[in-house]
Amino acid sequence: MTGFTAENTNGFHAGEKTAGEVIKSKAAVVWGPGEAFKIEEIEVEPPQRLEVRLRILFTSICHTDLNAWQGENKQQQIFPRVLGHEAAGVVESVGEAVEELKPGDRVVPVFTGECGYCAACQSEKTNICDGYAVDPMRSVMRADGRVRFFWVGPDGERRPVYHFLNTSTFSEYTVIDSACVVKVPAGAPLSRMCLLSCGISTGLGAAWNTANVEEGSKVAIFGLGAVGLAVAEGARLRGAANIIGVDINPKKFLKGREMGITDFINPTDYTKPLHEVVRELTKGGVDYSFECSGNLEVLREAFLSTHLGWGLTVVLGVHPSPKLLPLHPMELFERKIVAAVFGDFKAKSQLPELISKCISGEIKINLDGFISHELPFSEINQAFQLLSEGKALRCLLKL
Amino acid sequence: MTGFTAENTNGFHAGEKTAGEVIKSKAAVVWGPGEAFKIEEIEVEPPQRLEVRLRILFTSICHTDLNAWQGENKQQQIFPRVLGHEAAGVVESVGEAVEELKPGDRVVPVFTGECGYCAACQSEKTNICDGYAVDPMRSVMRADGRVRFFWVGPDGERRPVYHFLNTSTFSEYTVIDSACVVKVPAGAPLSRMCLLSCGISTGLGAAWNTANVEEGSKVAIFGLGAVGLAVAEGARLRGAANIIGVDINPKKFLKGREMGITDFINPTDYTKPLHEVVRELTKGGVDYSFECSGNLEVLREAFLSTHLGWGLTVVLGVHPSPKLLPLHPMELFERKIVAAVFGDFKAKSQLPELISKCISGEIKINLDGFISHELPFSEINQAFQLLSEGKALRCLLKL
Repeated sequence: MTGFTAENTNGFHAGEKTAGEVIKSKAAVVWGPGEAFKIEEIEVEPPQRLEVRLRILFTSICHTDLNAWQGENKQQQIFPRVLGHEAAGVVESVGEAVEELKPGDRVVPVFTGECGYCAACQSEKTNICDGYAVDPMRSVMRADGRVRFFWVGPDGERRPVYHFLNTSTFSEYTVIDSACVVKVPAGAPLSRMCLLSCGISTGLGAAWNTANVEEGSKVAIFGLGAVGLAVAEGARLRGAANIIGVDINPKKFLKGREMGITDFINPTDYTKPLHEVVRELTKGGVDYSFECSGNLEVLREAFLSTHLGWGLTVVLGVHPSPKLLPLHPMELFERKIVAAVFGDFKAKSQLPELISKCISGEIKINLDGFISHELPFSEINQAFQLLSEGKALRCLLKL
Repeated sequence: MTGFTAENTNGFHAGEKTAGEVIKSKAAVVWGPGEAFKIEEIEVEPPQRLEVRLRILFTSICHTDLNAWQGENKQQQIFPRVLGHEAAGVVESVGEAVEELKPGDRVVPVFTGECGYCAACQSEKTNICDGYAVDPMRSVMRADGRVRFFWVGPDGERRPVYHFLNTSTFSEYTVIDSACVVKVPAGAPLSRMCLLSCGISTGLGAAWNTANVEEGSKVAIFGLGAVGLAVAEGARLRGAANIIGVDINPKKFLKGREMGITDFINPTDYTKPLHEVVRELTKGGVDYSFECSGNLEVLREAFLSTHLGWGLTVVLGVHPSPKLLPLHPMELFERKIVAAVFGDFKAKSQLPELISKCISGEIKINLDGFISHELPFSEINQAFQLLSEGKALRCLLKL
């Protein structure tokens, strides 16, 4: 990570003055599905037991935010809401019983937490914490079933504003369970650490932890957004021989080349099924395919693109559709398919090591390459527009 | 394996006299879906290059034979055909280039072979050999696309009789690719080795190789046929703490107790979904569930019965239905599901070790317990009746 130095965040460590108080905060509030974000002044209550209040300094936008904003899944629709989950910031104050974090700590929030104590956290087989795993249905704090955000109308009406994905980072201040806050080592630039709080770690971890891509292996990535390109980075760093990128947007191919992609397939160039193209190109199929599109037809093509016998497909895309998995039971006898949340990283115990290796240069990952746009927080609607049109990889918003 | 001694098979080593000749053989031929087997005298041609002709001494019946007999999958219907794939016997003669087998060798045929040379055989990740993996669509020999069985009518008409699952063991003599024939160590009783050529190995391997059941873990088995009970034996030998057997036939419960099953669930005793019963009984779900029923609704219950996060379901049942897997894509983020052929054992390189350990007593497996009936080969129709009515676990046919 050359050319970057950690930002001076001393000015944001205001804990002594504000701890225990309600803080007024600018937040991008969404009032209904697909409605433009409104920058509102909301009230942010102090953190309760095992909670932390953060001053968010950078946040970026991921497709999961886009899905939630558009209200793709009706069961998850609840408004007004503060979305956002990929971010970095500074601890403002901590609630009772929080021991490992203190005001002024530089941190990233994570949408899938790690309590460290439950059976799942004690297991080496999963990062799905019993209490703090990602839950798109939850819109209140776990401790008391209430919100920490309130909007106060001109007539004094005080309305709850709902939380999102354990994080709600489209706000200057947010309250998060301490199980979902990871301390960032000194010297790490928060503007880049922001990316490691979701998309990049999800892609790297899928290649490293979930698939365990080996040197010389063949990989196909379906969907070249930030997660797909992070898979490419992960596969490149593992020494994969072929990294095939599949996307209908030819502009993704230029960026992909930087990220280690060796071959491109634009589905619109072919009339035959995509898996046949991949299987011909690789003489029998790839060892690993990664579905990063959130599209069920693409998922099936990704599955059929792998080699018979040992092929493994990793599902990373979010599929809001309640449709069945488009696979037949007997097809599981020929190939494997798994899904991974946050690249199978345990957030609090494993993310710090990943971050440290990125900072020290032991892991040579092109974080800068993922940032296609930088905008002030007030331009959040433009940032969503860029992402939904496929023009942005990651748009960094500065608060 | 106390109380058993290897049968004297010297009398069946007739290779010197018959090698290279067409042999007349009694075979149970099925002429149409669901039609009674007819014991016919057929002609069995000599083995071609890399093929072996066997004298079958014992064969038993597995549900895959039952499905094929009933013609459940229309695409796989081809008649007349010699079914059967779980068996043991003696090599009568070998074709050109067969080096590791010779006349008189005591062997078991296996429906999913291992050539030893293809990329899949070289990989540690799969037992699905490129050339000789199980293929229910194939009904002719791989070498020349022809059959080795012929039926000769009273008017001299000579009709081909088709092969099944690389094996076709419902015949005194059969021709099999040498990749699908495993030599049995001296001293092994063929009547019991027969069981290891399919069902028992499938169940044991699912517990050991596919799921890797650990000491103290919780297991649920859906469907207590021979494969399900072999999973129970495998889980018991690994020291699983809870082995829950699920079956609508209460008679299976008595046998299950012998095989290490600790708890029984009869779905007809409950009105709530089966997975809720299992999850309540195990306080959150089992670590491993095994679907041995071939029923898609049961598959879904097995999947939902595992613990969130680390739960793994192993599919062993054959699902001839072309329906989709009854899972939603997002459910893969919470639990894993895989399928296994022949318990992920590589037939030729791993089955001999399993057999040796069974003989030496290092693996204390209750093979006798799986044989519920013994009948002469001529009673094959009765044996199918017993299996289809759920009365037989394994019915051993002596040829």
